[in-house]
Parts: sequence; C-alpha cells; structure tokens
Amino acid sequence: MRLTKTVGEYLLGFGALQQVDRLLPKSTRQSGERVYLIDHFFYDGSLLPRLPLLKKDRVLYIDTTDEPTTEQVDAITAQLRSDAPPQAILGIGGGSTMDIAKAVSNLLSNGGSAADYQGWDLVKVPGVFKVGVPTISGTGAEASRTCVMMNHAENLKLGMNSDHTLFDRVILDPELTATVPRNQYFFTGMDTYIHCIESLAGRYRHALADAFSHQALAVCREIFLSGNMQSDEYREKLMIASFLGGSAIGNSLVGLIHPFSAGLSMVLHTHHCVGNCIVLNAMDEFYPREVEEFRRMQESQRVALPRGLCQGLADSQYRALYEATIIHEKPLANALGDDFRSILTFDKVAEIFRRM
Amino acid sequence: MRLTKTVGEYLLGFGALQQVDRLLPKSTRQSGERVYLIDHFFYDGSLLPRLPLLKKDRVLYIDTTDEPTTEQVDAITAQLRSDAPPQAILGIGGGSTMDIAKAVSNLLSNGGSAADYQGWDLVKVPGVFKVGVPTISGTGAEASRTCVMMNHAENLKLGMNSDHTLFDRVILDPELTATVPRNQYFFTGMDTYIHCIESLAGRYRHALADAFSHQALAVCREIFLSGNMQSDEYREKLMIASFLGGSAIGNSLVGLIHPFSAGLSMVLHTHHCVGNCIVLNAMDEFYPREVEEFRRMQESQRVALPRGLCQGLADSQYRALYEATIIHEKPLANALGDDFRSILTFDKVAEIFRRM
Repeated sequence: MRLTKTVGEYLLGFGALQQVDRLLPKSTRQSGERVYLIDHFFYDGSLLPRLPLLKKDRVLYIDTTDEPTTEQVDAITAQLRSDAPPQAILGIGGGSTMDIAKAVSNLLSNGGSAADYQGWDLVKVPGVFKVGVPTISGTGAEASRTCVMMNHAENLKLGMNSDHTLFDRVILDPELTATVPRNQYFFTGMDTYIHCIESLAGRYRHALADAFSHQALAVCREIFLSGNMQSDEYREKLMIASFLGGSAIGNSLVGLIHPFSAGLSMVLHTHHCVGNCIVLNAMDEFYPREVEEFRRMQESQRVALPRGLCQGLADSQYRALYEATIIHEKPLANALGDDFRSILTFDKVAEIFRRM
Repeated sequence: MRLTKTVGEYLLGFGALQQVDRLLPKSTRQSGERVYLIDHFFYDGSLLPRLPLLKKDRVLYIDTTDEPTTEQVDAITAQLRSDAPPQAILGIGGGSTMDIAKAVSNLLSNGGSAADYQGWDLVKVPGVFKVGVPTISGTGAEASRTCVMMNHAENLKLGMNSDHTLFDRVILDPELTATVPRNQYFFTGMDTYIHCIESLAGRYRHALADAFSHQALAVCREIFLSGNMQSDEYREKLMIASFLGGSAIGNSLVGLIHPFSAGLSMVLHTHHCVGNCIVLNAMDEFYPREVEEFRRMQESQRVALPRGLCQGLADSQYRALYEATIIHEKPLANALGDDFRSILTFDKVAEIFRRM
C-alpha cells in the first residue's frame, strides 16, 4: 500500500499560461529569479509574449533533438548553480523538457549528479518549486513522479522515481498544442493510450489508477477514432487524458511496450513516443485487441508508421537491444510474471524487434 | 478560469486506516494531540482497535442523527478551544462527520463562528492539519472544497466553500464500508451518481471535472445495475467513484436536485442522500434518462424509496420549501440559465414537491 501523491494544484483552460503568475508563490513575484526551461521548438520566441517575464527571470531553450541525458541535466544544473538559486523552475514543452525541468529542480536542492538519483526514492529533499506546462499532450510527464533520462555511461534509461519529482503546479493550456505537427501529435497522444493499456493489462492493480486509465482510454478512443483529432475540443480533451494517464501510471506500472521502446531509444536513438507506437505495432501476440484498435486509429488519422527500423542490424545490435529491454524487470514482471525471462528469451526478443 | 486545488495525498486500500500514522506530519506523532471526530455509528468502540491512539489523543463521537448545523460545529470547536490547539483533526465517518471535521479545523485557525464563513472563499488562513476518512461512500466530502451546514437562524443550508476546506490527506479504506446498512449504502452511493449527472447537464463546463464525472458514472452503473453492490470489489470501486465525484464537483456545479434536496433538509429534516434520491425520482421532466436509469438501479438493488413525503403539507410549508430551494441561485442557473425563476415558479416548485 503506497501513500499516493499527485499534483494538487493546476490551472486549466485556453490561455491559462498567461496567468502563470497566479500559480507562483508570492515570494517569486517580488524578488526571486524564475527560470523558464522552454523546448527549442519555440526558439523563435513565439511563446515569450505569453509569459509575464520579469527583469531577473532567465529563459533557457532546451535542445530536445535527442532524448534527455544525465549529462544534459548536469550541464543545465551547473549553468544555474553558478548564480543564486532560482525561486522557481518552469518546464514548458513536451515530456523531454518537463522531465529535464523536474530533474534540474531536484538536483539544485539535493546536490550531486543526475545519475545519483536514477532509481526509486533516492531524492532526499524537495526540489526548487516547479511548474509543468505541457505544449504537446500524451507523455503524462506533467503528472508523473518520474523524469526519465538516458545514462549512456551505465547503458540505461531510467527515471528519478520520487514524490519530490512531482511538479508543485501544472498549467494545462490547450492553446499551446495548436502548432504541434500532425504525426507528432498522434504518436505522442498514443503514449497515453499505451500507458493505460499496459497498466490495465498488468498484474499490479490500483483502483484509482484503473479509474484514471479507463477514462483516459475512453477519451483516446473518442479522439483518435474520429475525424479531426486536432480540433480545439479534442486538443483540450487529449490534454486531460494525458494528465489522467500520467496520474494513473504514478500508481501502477507499464508493461511490455515501454521496455522494448526504451531498448530502441538506447540503441537506435528512437524517440520515446514514436518508439512506443512502433513497438505496439509488433506486439500482436501480447496485446491483440489493442494492436488492432491502434491500427484502426492510425488508419482513421492517416498517420504512417516508420517501417524497417530493426531489419538487417548486426548481431551485436540485437544483443544490445535485448540487454536494454530485459533490464526493466518491474514492468516486464508486471506484464508476464516473475518468470518473464523464460518467455522473453533472446531469440524471442530479437524476433519481435525484427518485426519493427 | 479557476486555480484548482485537490487533495494531493491519499492512502488507498483494504486496511489503510491502520496506517494512518504514515499520513500525519511527524510533529503530531511526537508531542501533539490529535483529535479523532468519529461518527456515532461507531460509538460501540469498534473502530478503536484500528487507530494508533496515543495518550494525549482525544476521541469525540459526532451525533449525525440530523444534518450538521453551525451551532453543532461551534459547540465542538468551543470544546476543543478550551485546551491547547490540536496538531491534527481526523474526520472518520460519512459526509456529516467529515464536513464537521473540515469546519472545526477551519474555525480553530480562523476564529469566530461557523456562520461567518458560509459562502465562497471567506476562510482566511489554512485550518489545522486535517485528514478525511470516509466510512460510507458517495458524498464526495473526502475530496470536495466545501462543508455544508444548516444555519437555522438564517434559514439556509450552505457550505464553507474554500480551498482551505480541502482535507490535507485522505484515507480510502474499503474495509470501513463493510458494515453500512443496505439502504443507506444505496442512497449515499447515489449522491455520487447525482453529483455527476447534474454537473454534466449544466451550462458550466470544466474538462477535468467532466472526465471525473464520466468515469464516476461508469463505475456507478457497473455497481448499481449489477448483482451484489456491496461486494468487496464494488465497495472499493464505489469509494473511488465517490472520490472522483467529489473532485469533479469542486470544479463544477450541481443542478436542480441538490437545491430541492436542501429544501427538504431545511423544512422536513430529510437527510441529504435519501433526499437527493427522492428529488431525483420526481424530476422526470428535467432528467428523463437519468430518472429512468435510477429506477432501474433501484429495482436491481431492491431498495424502496420513502413515499408521500410532501403530501398534505400546509401552504406555509410549501412556501418554506420553495424559499429554501430557490435561494440556491448558482446551481439553479447552471441547470436552467439565469432566467431560472421564470421556469421554477412557486406553483411549479410546489407541484414538484407534491410528487415526492
């Protein structure tokens, strides 16, 4: 039985970002410096008119070309450590930017390097006050208690799982997702769908997580099996579904898809969300109904999946994919039981990857 | 656009109450006094073995024969004020007990009388640390930002609507609902159903509240249209639905049923939850599909509704019922528009009450 902590304060609605000042503690409005970490997608400055920037505030654009790394988090933290510590950190972007904001907040208060805290409940004290602002819906990073980073030295992809990783506040502003490219909108939205089907198919059960997952799935079905997934109404609904999916996953576990997708990220640098979709599409034997539904959604939205990703790789690459997948024991055991290695042999795992 | 605050920390599961110490701030475990306000249903002491009572702790049983009143809250607060202020207040019971715990917590910090804070956002500073523990599911009091009290001097039934009214922590322990009498289980569970149908039928929309309401309704349908509504599984699910319904209503508004039910409480001392059911059953013209579904649930669970409640009343009583109903402008306007008085004339309101 786990004491569950969720983000307890949020502002929701079209244009909510412009009211960010209402979410910040009063102290930061007067004297303190606020740091805005913004996805480089907005490097053209198009977000700045929406932000109530004060003289002392700093804006850093985050390069999210690749998945976040521990080195990247350490570098940003070092840059911020050279000055007086900021009063608040705002992460404005997708899962990568929000995860980096969460990690930097924790590091500024706890010291050390990002890799020191990869694992479960290793963060000792609360981070700097942090606000999450998704500009694309699906990852649930705005609501989850983790921030996932690649650690190339250790050859792993793992998060700082901790109650301290949760954002203090969240802004859900559907205006911000109006400019998301079509394919990316679909792949990232599917992250919520995949979280929830994995969670509901697992052995580990949590009644509130189940309720959140069921509702998030209902919304995903409405959005992605219909006409225009990017309408104002559906963009707002997908933002809610993402928040619910993130809340669910904080009390449950993913299944087979996320470990395989983490393997793709580690070895082939595939981005998380499109990687999830590629993996799901090769999982007929484990999630037959969901794969079928996913393909109908894809058809309905006319989004094509990259093909042939893992064909013709060297044996050493299949070995690396296997290693980077099988290391995720908790979700694999959630899906298949403690004996998951007897099902996911090297040959089986390689066969699944070859289908992608 | 409202900054939403919800209960951010909760412990969920069979037997969770026995772990209440994990939810209390450390300071209260060492020196402070904790006050347990417990519904008089447990006056036989049957809950005490589940509580980690310390020497200084106090247990007060709350008489919930009638709906909570401002006088009752003032009396309990005065009793607690005579000693050093408690470090934490735990409200263990149904909506009445939890609402009293919330009100007492606010009063101990803010001074004055309960009636001073009936209304919207009148509570100035955070109350004493408070934990909600429902022992019956449905009211959503464990998650809502209000605590409703009858104020007989002012002839109104109104809550302290405030972010400070929210519990700091909640314990959801389905073991506690095992002893609820069958009819009361049904009527109280229906409070969630009614919250959600009212919220979804209103003009005021909030995307997250809608998501919570849809899921809570799906769970209510599963539980009450099926066989044994009081099975372990369904008791756990109803506890979740109640929490979701309470979270929804914090971001939305009720409709016609709650104002009429408040009228019944004020004039005829009808309890909130059975009152809601009686009102819903007379609302065919406003909620036709829901009334039909409600009757199927009643049939499925073989629960009879009190009849003839408002037949043969004096004219002055119909007038009092009308006044106590029509005063609830916000929910009535949410349901019918600002012009609600042209629909809900005295004759119309009296006609609806006569059907009950």
